[in-house]
Amino acid sequence: MNHQPQSFDSSQAQSPDELVGMMARAGRAAQRVLAGMDSAARASALRLAAKHIRSGAEAILAANAQDVEAGRANGLSPAMLDRLVLDEARLEGIASAVEAVAALPDPVGQVIDQSERPNGLRMSRVRVPVGTIGIIYESRPNVTADAAALCVRAGNAALLRGGSEAAQSNRAILAAFQKGLVEGGVPEAAVQLIPTQDRAAVGAMLTASGLIDMIVPRGGKSLVARVQQDARVPVLAHLDGICHTYIHAAADPQMARAIALNAKMRRTGICGAMETLLIDAGFGEAKALLGDLLDAGCELRGDARICALDPRIVPATDEDWDTEYLDAVLSAAMVDNLAGALAHIDRHSSAHTDAIVTDDEAAAEHFLAAVDSAIVMHNASSQFADGGEFGLGAEIGIATGRLHARGPVALEGLTTYKWLVRGTGQARP
Amino acid sequence: MNHQPQSFDSSQAQSPDELVGMMARAGRAAQRVLAGMDSAARASALRLAAKHIRSGAEAILAANAQDVEAGRANGLSPAMLDRLVLDEARLEGIASAVEAVAALPDPVGQVIDQSERPNGLRMSRVRVPVGTIGIIYESRPNVTADAAALCVRAGNAALLRGGSEAAQSNRAILAAFQKGLVEGGVPEAAVQLIPTQDRAAVGAMLTASGLIDMIVPRGGKSLVARVQQDARVPVLAHLDGICHTYIHAAADPQMARAIALNAKMRRTGICGAMETLLIDAGFGEAKALLGDLLDAGCELRGDARICALDPRIVPATDEDWDTEYLDAVLSAAMVDNLAGALAHIDRHSSAHTDAIVTDDEAAAEHFLAAVDSAIVMHNASSQFADGGEFGLGAEIGIATGRLHARGPVALEGLTTYKWLVRGTGQARP
Repeated sequence: MNHQPQSFDSSQAQSPDELVGMMARAGRAAQRVLAGMDSAARASALRLAAKHIRSGAEAILAANAQDVEAGRANGLSPAMLDRLVLDEARLEGIASAVEAVAALPDPVGQVIDQSERPNGLRMSRVRVPVGTIGIIYESRPNVTADAAALCVRAGNAALLRGGSEAAQSNRAILAAFQKGLVEGGVPEAAVQLIPTQDRAAVGAMLTASGLIDMIVPRGGKSLVARVQQDARVPVLAHLDGICHTYIHAAADPQMARAIALNAKMRRTGICGAMETLLIDAGFGEAKALLGDLLDAGCELRGDARICALDPRIVPATDEDWDTEYLDAVLSAAMVDNLAGALAHIDRHSSAHTDAIVTDDEAAAEHFLAAVDSAIVMHNASSQFADGGEFGLGAEIGIATGRLHARGPVALEGLTTYKWLVRGTGQARP
Repeated sequence: MNHQPQSFDSSQAQSPDELVGMMARAGRAAQRVLAGMDSAARASALRLAAKHIRSGAEAILAANAQDVEAGRANGLSPAMLDRLVLDEARLEGIASAVEAVAALPDPVGQVIDQSERPNGLRMSRVRVPVGTIGIIYESRPNVTADAAALCVRAGNAALLRGGSEAAQSNRAILAAFQKGLVEGGVPEAAVQLIPTQDRAAVGAMLTASGLIDMIVPRGGKSLVARVQQDARVPVLAHLDGICHTYIHAAADPQMARAIALNAKMRRTGICGAMETLLIDAGFGEAKALLGDLLDAGCELRGDARICALDPRIVPATDEDWDTEYLDAVLSAAMVDNLAGALAHIDRHSSAHTDAIVTDDEAAAEHFLAAVDSAIVMHNASSQFADGGEFGLGAEIGIATGRLHARGPVALEGLTTYKWLVRGTGQARP
């Protein structure tokens, strides 16, 4: 049995397009087998993959040590090194996450709806795997196992392309993962890793229409921007999380202060963090609320009315309203009313997550209906924008596009549907 | 009140990109109003549009007569002229179709699912309009009203781009349609017609990411191919309908003969027409079934075993298995068993509609599960591949892509969803 990352000789490929084509065709063939397996068999293969990640810890950590050493030599930043480094606890986290995905309810085969026509034809829509998913990611080696597990759970082949900093770690994790798949009856080409030495392979993935059905970029803004710019294959992604929280005139002051502080400062680097605060002119405790943020170490950039409330607030520029800081920095504007808040959000939101804080139910429902973002919240911190918090168990990503899937995307977003028509000999009149 | 097709001066645009941008922004603003209206109000506006199409019959038929005259002068084929020409009966059909769309159940606002998290957050997914839909079509002027009605019913703005042969007819239909919209409280920019004199405007539509949310091409293969090739905006379409019907060994002979004849010959020019017939070597009445088709005037192109059954059958070339004839021509192959049929379909199907005829339920379910096409049928004619026949009331198109919507697409495919999160002050720990 061959446990190499690829089940064919990728060195025969003459070009990046040919390499991606060979791997995608091998993936498609493996995907057909995967789609024909039942849910329990796919889950069992994932549990075996977790087992082999645990039993292969020594090899994986040794490979990771090589990556970390090379990263240090190449001057990777401490933050990047921290994302890269694995230890026994992190590896156990990776294995457990694969088991958690194995335990998720299987969307494949779900009947979305069904009906019987007057002529007796019985129609149903049934969830099926999307097919082959390309995942392009950066330095976190855990994505190798996380993304592969989600794809396989929903019956998809995965073509993984990780960062070169994590090349050894990714290969070692994949080898362990594939051992489990093969033991569980899944062809190893169901999950493949595109060699990092071939830099042009990313471009070949992005244009592989008909070979790759969907691309999910996992990483920083420059990666996502490049993928969105160049891809001809559909992309599931969010570029920015310019999330707004609007404190309405009828907001409970304590609740507003607690939500604003949490939405900005709990973790400033996540896509659901608040980046712009909108305060209604009728809200009485704006000064106290802004003071909480300033006291917590947040830099505030305000419009004229906001700046007038505290000398520590600096004036915002036009650019601030369209900036995702991912840091302890916040833009803040005062708006005259709900309509003013909606106009600001319509103009500046990145359609990720926007929230209102108010005790006025009518205002809340108006906001929920009018804001055209993937996630719209009432009386909650935008930091809840996360598949786990939404009860999805895991997420492949958060999408701000409008088609197929929006917001946190988990297993359902890795499926599509087909129509089944069952007849008794009907010919169309 | 201004009933011109556009609510701004499109002559101010300096380039096709600028023209499409201006129109798309006007459409987006109108769409916000449309999305804020309730279902009954949108339906009422559509009924008013139908009323004005009827009352505007004289102007519409006069405009159409100009198009037909110009078409004759330009040497349009009789088939194209027939698609172009309107009379009172066809115009009544257009008005009735708009009323039928008004009467369809509204998908907007439907709650797809909801849950409550342990922390008390209440999550729901609610259907919302996709946004702005671009429709690119050819000579049939009825598409102007049909597509606009479907878009508006689901709360979307429509940017229409019809063929130059039907320019006068389309403008007249649109003017009547917009009168109804405006009377019903919908801004007229909700439905706009991109001037045909600007040929580069199609290219500008196809690359209008962020301005147009989805493109639906309605027309021949060269139009669809061009749109799929050049579009950066998501496209909902099918390029080919290479539909297979597999006559299994356990097919009822009478049923098999009736379905095969209907699937090919009822209407040969529709995308759901059978283009390849697969006959199981174990099916006893292949000669009679093929004879029915030959007797009905169908040209048959077969593999060696098929050709041996009747001297009227000509040998198929490799190309035949990948050809959509849209005519009284059929390719036919003999396969050894179900696996052989599946292998042929996996290789040659355009993923539109594929069917099996059999009395063996296990074989049928295996086929339904294994064939990875938008529509898979058992014991029915592939000519049923149509939104009306599926009970959708109408269709904007049939999609063979894998994401968002597959098969016949009607109102639901013109919606997406957003997540609503209702809290009571939750901050994320």
